[in-house]
Amino acid sequence: MNIKPLGGRILVEPVKEGEVKKGGIIIPDAAREKPQEGLVVALGTGKLNENGETVAFNVKEGDRVLMPKYGGTEVKYDDKEYQIMREEDLLAIIG
Amino acid sequence: MNIKPLGGRILVEPVKEGEVKKGGIIIPDAAREKPQEGLVVALGTGKLNENGETVAFNVKEGDRVLMPKYGGTEVKYDDKEYQIMREEDLLAIIG
Amino acid sequence: MNIKPLGGRILVEPVKEGEVKKGGIIIPDAAREKPQEGLVVALGTGKLNENGETVAFNVKEGDRVLMPKYGGTEVKYDDKEYQIMREEDLLAIIG
Amino acid sequence: MNIKPLGGRILVEPVKEGEVKKGGIIIPDAAREKPQEGLVVALGTGKLNENGETVAFNVKEGDRVLMPKYGGTEVKYDDKEYQIMREEDLLAIIG
Amino acid sequence: MNIKPLGGRILVEPVKEGEVKKGGIIIPDAAREKPQEGLVVALGTGKLNENGETVAFNVKEGDRVLMPKYGGTEVKYDDKEYQIMREEDLLAIIG
Amino acid sequence: MNIKPLGGRILVEPVKEGEVKKGGIIIPDAAREKPQEGLVVALGTGKLNENGETVAFNVKEGDRVLMPKYGGTEVKYDDKEYQIMREEDLLAIIG
Amino acid sequence: MNIKPLGGRILVEPVKEGEVKKGGIIIPDAAREKPQEGLVVALGTGKLNENGETVAFNVKEGDRVLMPKYGGTEVKYDDKEYQIMREEDLLAIIG
Repeated sequence: MNIKPLGGRILVEPVKEGEVKKGGIIIPDAAREKPQEGLVVALGTGKLNENGETVAFNVKEGDRVLMPKYGGTEVKYDDKEYQIMREEDLLAIIG
Repeated sequence: MNIKPLGGRILVEPVKEGEVKKGGIIIPDAAREKPQEGLVVALGTGKLNENGETVAFNVKEGDRVLMPKYGGTEVKYDDKEYQIMREEDLLAIIG
Repeated sequence: MNIKPLGGRILVEPVKEGEVKKGGIIIPDAAREKPQEGLVVALGTGKLNENGETVAFNVKEGDRVLMPKYGGTEVKYDDKEYQIMREEDLLAIIG
Repeated sequence: MNIKPLGGRILVEPVKEGEVKKGGIIIPDAAREKPQEGLVVALGTGKLNENGETVAFNVKEGDRVLMPKYGGTEVKYDDKEYQIMREEDLLAIIG
Repeated sequence: MNIKPLGGRILVEPVKEGEVKKGGIIIPDAAREKPQEGLVVALGTGKLNENGETVAFNVKEGDRVLMPKYGGTEVKYDDKEYQIMREEDLLAIIG
Repeated sequence: MNIKPLGGRILVEPVKEGEVKKGGIIIPDAAREKPQEGLVVALGTGKLNENGETVAFNVKEGDRVLMPKYGGTEVKYDDKEYQIMREEDLLAIIG
Repeated sequence: MNIKPLGGRILVEPVKEGEVKKGGIIIPDAAREKPQEGLVVALGTGKLNENGETVAFNVKEGDRVLMPKYGGTEVKYDDKEYQIMREEDLLAIIG
C-alpha cells in the first residue's frame, strides 16, 4: 500500500455489503447516521494530543472497524475505493 | 459481545418500552428532547481528559442508564439494536 | 431517589406554580427566557473543572434554585416530573 | 435580599428611566445594542478563571453599572424586577 | 470622566468628521467594514490574558485610535457620545 | 521558487489529470469532497503547535500528496498554478 | 508612516495591478478567494502567542507579501489606500 495518511488520519477499505460476515453489523433503515464496516489498511504519520505529543493509535492495520459512512474522504487507487478519516471519528472495533 | 467502542464511547442496548420496569422513567409527551432507558453493554477503549490522560468511566457494564434518544449512532448486530455514544452524553444512572 | 445524574449534572424537581411561596419569584410576561423555581433532589457523580479535577457543587440537596425553564431534559419518574441539567446552567439559590 | 446568584453571576436592579440622575447615561435612538443603568444588589457564589481558581469580582454591591439591556435573565421578586447576568457581560461602572 | 469600563474594555470618544485633521484617515466608500477615528478617554479596570493574569493595555488615555465603526456599544453621557469596546478590537494608533 | 508560504502553510503544485501516473489516485464521481494530487514545492516559514513551539512538517519538498481540492488558495506564478494551504489540511503522502 | 497597527496586526499597501512585476502573481479568474500582492509598511505593537508571550513577526517592513483580498480593513491616509490585517492571515512572502 503506498498511500500514507497524514497526522491522525487512517486509511480504511470499506467492506462491500456482499462480503459482510454473518452476524456482522447491519445498519437499520431508520438510522439517521449510517455507520459502515471497514478494514484498517494504513495508519497516519502520527497522532498528536492537545499538548502536541505523539500518542498511540487505538486501532492497528487489519482491524475491522465501524465507521460513519460520510465521515471521511473517498479516494480510489488501483480500482479499489478507500476512505481517509481521522481515527477519533471511528466508532468501534469489531471482532 | 464483540463490538468494542473506541475512545470514550460506550455501547448501550436500549430497553424496549414493554420491558421498562414499573416505576421506571416515563418520558412526558411534551418533552423537547426525549431521553430513553438503556443497558450499558460495553465500555470504550479508554476515555481521555483534556490533558490526554486516561480517566475512569462513570458507568460500568450492566448499568441501567438514561440517555438522550438521538445522541448516538444506531447499530444492529445479531438482530439486536444498540446505540454507540460518548459517555458524557449519558444523563443519569438509574437503579 | 434512585436517579443518579452523571458528571456535573443535577436532578431538580420543579416547584408547581400553586406551591410557590408568597414573596417568591414571579416571572414577568415579557421575559424572553423564563426562569423557573425548583428543588435540588440529587447531585451528579462528580463535577470536573477544565483540568479534569473534581470540584465541589455550589448547590446541595434541598436547595431551592432558580433555573432556566428549557435548559434541561425532562424526565418523569413515579409520576413526578424532574429536570436533569448541568449545575452551571442554574441561575441562583433562593432563600 | 434572598436571591444568591450562582458562580460568576450577579443580580442587578435596573434603574427606572424616571430615576436616572441628571448627567446620567442616555441611550441614543440609533444604538444597535441598548445599554441600561442598574444597581448591583448581589454578587454570585464565586467567579472562576480559566484554571478554576476563584477570582475577585470587579464590581461590588451598591455599584451603579451599565449593562446590556438583553444580556441577562429577568426575574421578579416581591414586585421588584431584577436581571441576573454574568459579571463579564457588564460594560462599565458609573459614578 | 466618571464612566469606568470593566475588564479589557476602553471608552472612546469618536472624532466627528468635521474635526478630522488634514492628512487623517478617510474611509473609502467601498470599504466593507468602516473604521472610524476616536480618542481614548478611559481604560478598563484590567485586561487579562488567557491565564487570568493582568496585562498592560497597548493604548493610553489621549491616544488617537482607529476603531471599527460597529465594534462597540454606543453610550451618551452629558450630551457627548462614546463607544465602549474591547481593546483588542481597536485597529491602530494614529499619530 | 520565490514564493515562501507563511507559518504552517505549504505551496503545492497540482498534478494535471493527464499527468497522473498509472495506478495513481482517481477520484470517484460520487465523492462529496474531491481530493486532488499535487507536488509539494515549498514549506512555510515555520509550523507551530498549541504551545507556540516550532514543530517539524510531515511533508518535504518533492512529496506527492493528496489534498482537498478546495482547501487552499489558488495562486498563479510564471503561468503555473499553485495552491497555498495549511499542512494539516493535506490528507496523505502518496508514493 | 504614522499609523501603528495594534497587537498582531500589520499595515500593508496593496500593489496596484499596473505595478505588478513581470513574473509576479496573477490571480486566476476562477479563484474562489482572490489573493493580492502588497508591501508591508508597518508592523503591530506586538504579536502574542497562546500563552500571552510576545513572539516575532514572520514578515518585516518592506516585504512583498501575498494577502487575501478581503481579509483586512481598508483605510485611506494621505490619499493612499492600505489594508490593516492580522499577520497570520497573510499567505506568503514573495521575492
